[in-house]
Amino acid sequence: MIVIMKHGATSAQIANVIARVEQSGCQADVSEGDEHTVIGVIGDGRPLDREQIERMTGVERTVSVARPFKRASRDFHPQSTVVPINGVQIGGEQVIVMAGPCAVESEEQLMESARLVKEAGAHVLRGGAFKPRTSPYSFQGMGEKGLKLLAQARKETGLPVVTEVMDPQTVPLVTTYANILQIGARNMQNYALLHAVGEAQRPVLLKRGMMSTIEELLMAAEYILSHGNNRVILCERGIRTFETYTRNTLDISAVPMLKQLTHLPVVVDPSHGTGKWELVEPMARAAVAAGADGLMIEVHPHPEEALSDGAQSLKPERFAALMQSLRPIAEAVGRTL
Amino acid sequence: MIVIMKHGATSAQIANVIARVEQSGCQADVSEGDEHTVIGVIGDGRPLDREQIERMTGVERTVSVARPFKRASRDFHPQSTVVPINGVQIGGEQVIVMAGPCAVESEEQLMESARLVKEAGAHVLRGGAFKPRTSPYSFQGMGEKGLKLLAQARKETGLPVVTEVMDPQTVPLVTTYANILQIGARNMQNYALLHAVGEAQRPVLLKRGMMSTIEELLMAAEYILSHGNNRVILCERGIRTFETYTRNTLDISAVPMLKQLTHLPVVVDPSHGTGKWELVEPMARAAVAAGADGLMIEVHPHPEEALSDGAQSLKPERFAALMQSLRPIAEAVGRTL
Amino acid sequence: MIVIMKHGATSAQIANVIARVEQSGCQADVSEGDEHTVIGVIGDGRPLDREQIERMTGVERTVSVARPFKRASRDFHPQSTVVPINGVQIGGEQVIVMAGPCAVESEEQLMESARLVKEAGAHVLRGGAFKPRTSPYSFQGMGEKGLKLLAQARKETGLPVVTEVMDPQTVPLVTTYANILQIGARNMQNYALLHAVGEAQRPVLLKRGMMSTIEELLMAAEYILSHGNNRVILCERGIRTFETYTRNTLDISAVPMLKQLTHLPVVVDPSHGTGKWELVEPMARAAVAAGADGLMIEVHPHPEEALSDGAQSLKPERFAALMQSLRPIAEAVGRTL
Amino acid sequence: MIVIMKHGATSAQIANVIARVEQSGCQADVSEGDEHTVIGVIGDGRPLDREQIERMTGVERTVSVARPFKRASRDFHPQSTVVPINGVQIGGEQVIVMAGPCAVESEEQLMESARLVKEAGAHVLRGGAFKPRTSPYSFQGMGEKGLKLLAQARKETGLPVVTEVMDPQTVPLVTTYANILQIGARNMQNYALLHAVGEAQRPVLLKRGMMSTIEELLMAAEYILSHGNNRVILCERGIRTFETYTRNTLDISAVPMLKQLTHLPVVVDPSHGTGKWELVEPMARAAVAAGADGLMIEVHPHPEEALSDGAQSLKPERFAALMQSLRPIAEAVGRTL
Repeated sequence: MIVIMKHGATSAQIANVIARVEQSGCQADVSEGDEHTVIGVIGDGRPLDREQIERMTGVERTVSVARPFKRASRDFHPQSTVVPINGVQIGGEQVIVMAGPCAVESEEQLMESARLVKEAGAHVLRGGAFKPRTSPYSFQGMGEKGLKLLAQARKETGLPVVTEVMDPQTVPLVTTYANILQIGARNMQNYALLHAVGEAQRPVLLKRGMMSTIEELLMAAEYILSHGNNRVILCERGIRTFETYTRNTLDISAVPMLKQLTHLPVVVDPSHGTGKWELVEPMARAAVAAGADGLMIEVHPHPEEALSDGAQSLKPERFAALMQSLRPIAEAVGRTL
Repeated sequence: MIVIMKHGATSAQIANVIARVEQSGCQADVSEGDEHTVIGVIGDGRPLDREQIERMTGVERTVSVARPFKRASRDFHPQSTVVPINGVQIGGEQVIVMAGPCAVESEEQLMESARLVKEAGAHVLRGGAFKPRTSPYSFQGMGEKGLKLLAQARKETGLPVVTEVMDPQTVPLVTTYANILQIGARNMQNYALLHAVGEAQRPVLLKRGMMSTIEELLMAAEYILSHGNNRVILCERGIRTFETYTRNTLDISAVPMLKQLTHLPVVVDPSHGTGKWELVEPMARAAVAAGADGLMIEVHPHPEEALSDGAQSLKPERFAALMQSLRPIAEAVGRTL
Repeated sequence: MIVIMKHGATSAQIANVIARVEQSGCQADVSEGDEHTVIGVIGDGRPLDREQIERMTGVERTVSVARPFKRASRDFHPQSTVVPINGVQIGGEQVIVMAGPCAVESEEQLMESARLVKEAGAHVLRGGAFKPRTSPYSFQGMGEKGLKLLAQARKETGLPVVTEVMDPQTVPLVTTYANILQIGARNMQNYALLHAVGEAQRPVLLKRGMMSTIEELLMAAEYILSHGNNRVILCERGIRTFETYTRNTLDISAVPMLKQLTHLPVVVDPSHGTGKWELVEPMARAAVAAGADGLMIEVHPHPEEALSDGAQSLKPERFAALMQSLRPIAEAVGRTL
Repeated sequence: MIVIMKHGATSAQIANVIARVEQSGCQADVSEGDEHTVIGVIGDGRPLDREQIERMTGVERTVSVARPFKRASRDFHPQSTVVPINGVQIGGEQVIVMAGPCAVESEEQLMESARLVKEAGAHVLRGGAFKPRTSPYSFQGMGEKGLKLLAQARKETGLPVVTEVMDPQTVPLVTTYANILQIGARNMQNYALLHAVGEAQRPVLLKRGMMSTIEELLMAAEYILSHGNNRVILCERGIRTFETYTRNTLDISAVPMLKQLTHLPVVVDPSHGTGKWELVEPMARAAVAAGADGLMIEVHPHPEEALSDGAQSLKPERFAALMQSLRPIAEAVGRTL
């Protein structure tokens, strides 16, 4: 941590800050500049709270030197993490595609979807049984019945299954059916839930909150990692900006930024990220070109009848065409698909 | 709902949309403009999902006519809701001040804080026993021990207590100690938690998510209301913007906007909303001048030693002075304090 | 400036940075932390460009210590600047109200507006002769004819006049008619224009860009100050956020923040800041309560017929009532009106 | 336009709106819904101002049906515009790369840059002679001397030249030297400047303001088109969001969105869009994969010594490698490079 004193801070104020730093077992390194005195804090800083220091008289602000995430940081774990799931490797050479309907709606809809995405080359089946919806009056998902259908679809197609869990209490239930536990964007800072999946015996797909910084995403991953679960997959799914023509702004630049900062795999969800099916295909291609380890794409056999997010779902034939077009891009960046 | 067809939509596409609208039991009212055909949907629209319609060929976009919140809307409940708590009325003529430390840290700290804010004229004691923290390595609160100290402080001072609940499983526990259950900004769309407090026998203080729209805040309130709990107090606490000199941008204009849209009381938290103690006082005055029903203010006897959010806590003597300066402003807008 | 080296930066990389710092005539103060080496740069830093340093191998990032604005900073000019205009003092004890129509539309409309706002107690007449409009097909203002009407209204009422200038070439023309030159939000970083008004013999009202930070606003003021014009009045008029119920988010917290950072007067425009006339009154009161030195308010005798921004204009009788309600709030914060 | 009346609007209020609509020569089409009356306005709406209608009693809000841009809209000009420049076609099958230093600094620097980017396969030389800088104390560009060097580099390499113009008064000067006039992000809504380049005899590269919506970008293009200049190239260069790890958020999804809305070519500037050279390469690949018609990339022979934006400039050898990696991606989306 670095402490920047106010212009005109008195020597007593400076001495107080130094005393506080030393009292916490750190060392203080003082630089007197032309306009401001700057105090470097040497030591791990754990006992020192930035906000406490900022409250001291004469302090203008503090600056963190070290990133606040440790287990997620590539600095201390240079090798990329690969998460193996039923024979596929997320974070390896192959770009992994997770596809399926937004919500599980019926046996027929799910089995048809599963077969079609499998045929087109998808590696993982997605589908929501518990749906976080903005309105209490919208369809909230089929619950456990949906989980059972997902397990049945896995049995039929061999595709592993990713599905959302919304409540710490249902983590054990979802764990018995799913191969990957998904934490939705609205729950990225639901710490009770992060704690629960941190103790679960399943990989976790952690979606970036639509209002969350890259650092906060990594801190949320840190919660899961610090509870003992190392199999965390990060997912960029669009952030909220002032733009209204797209539902969210899919932050493709987060992909290379995250790959630099962390060893965890990074996938992209262009369906939620854009909210418009016409944008899903170009943005899926952009994500792979930017270095994403995988994609999460909504496919629905009859999007016009979908009970949620129909506007962003691809028809199966478009999905199959998209898969074809992704291959040469994956190869251009040294990957397979 | 209104459906705007694309420029050049065919008559078959238009007929398909009309058929879908009528099939759902609504009426379609077609207007052919110079550039676009517009289809008005008459009926409550519940069976029709906007996204399904947006997925139909030839549709450019849809526009909601009715607000999606009903129970929270002033349109259907013109009289302001007043939430009575231990003798004070939130949403009535009096501006209610909730004050206390960010986190409960020790018996001594809490009792001193409680006595001082009571003396200065606060009406409700605030203090966190469960603390949502960005880092898994930060102080996470005293838990049940903190709740017991809050109950003890209430006994000593007579002040009712507001404290945060983070997990559906701990709602019963927190309900036994608290007078008001607080939902933090990060949990505003934690639907399992909203469901749980919607069934609890306590008023709920619902904080606006830092990147949530006013409409989403009202939809979160709608969740609680729809589960049977009518005693919801809304709290503006700053939104995330591109500005970095302030920690958040306290959206004071949300206060008159909310008072117009909803019958629920609206309070403002200038401590989290600004993140800097120097801004708390002017922003508290601004909130009252703009028509807020109450304030939530962090006060700590020794902010330099606070275990969380020290930078935004007021010293007790500044809080007492602030209370004095708020009175004439409350009177200028026809209220008491 | 502080240079934070990457975790694992080599001693050669550190030596290179030190050499570069010293070569520019500054001193380097090196701190070796547990995770990162930090190099403090002592000296005024003018010859050293942050971006050049950030490009060096092994550098993670740099942090500015000193604020980049000097002439605008209160650190070097602790006394508040007061801008005298035709007998009123902007930045003094009195809260100054600038009122009038968004655009000058006709002699009748302007004279009626001017008389009514004068009667209600306004101190300055506002009105646009050159209007920046998003659409090339919208009314662009009356131009010089509008300026002449403003001069006539000043003659009749004695109110000084503030009006916008959009183009460096028209600065001399506008200067012959106006008492205050207004730079609109969209032109806040139009450096050719800032240069031109920096050399003009008139006070400048500089509006914050709707997506400009407080620091950028102060840097824009710095442009004007550095060209020799010290009479700069800052104006907060709403920033762009994700919220859509209000047209902009009026950043009231910018007022106390700016008053702390700079000696320049700060006024608030709640009309553009909210875009809705119902919000103008509570937000005007909030601005005064937060310490604004003045207000800029749109008043139109017949807002339903206004050629621009009718939705945010007050009727004269509401404006008169607002002026009444502002007085006790001004007094509560130690000012007059 | 559609007018949505308030819940409970009286029939007199509805009649007033209808009268106003008809008075302006449009037709009113009234739909009475369960909660709101909706009035469709048929006719081109030019004489009716949305804001005037929104100010009428009983009106809740209005919704635009038609997009406000006409000349820029693909609806009325389905064929893509191709802008020919010295033998290259911007907006055609080939992806066009504009490369060179941020600022022209010296003859040596520019000639070296020009030769190197030409060799690597760039089609257009970029370089700033007039530089908009946030600080009045930063290097502001070489001015006309820089323009002369650009002309000399064109002569030596045969590459056409794009350079920024900041002031309506210098448009004629820049026109005599440049092949493409660039409007910078900060000047996107500088209407005097848009007017001036709209009358110039040169193609215009219009950069999206970092705070501007896609609609505003198209309205700015509309200004240029409506003054008679049809050769407008749009440029996405990053928008401002809450994220701080990247300098801006490069909005790749704006590319397919714009290609759908407008017939104008769309290029992407990943250098300004990210602010970090490590992100330039993956984001350039993502832009091409998403369908961009071109790229604008900063290349500097010695980025560590660059006078502006060194942090985002590529070294020539990295640029050459990037060009190689872009070819297969261009081919994968059916283009050449």
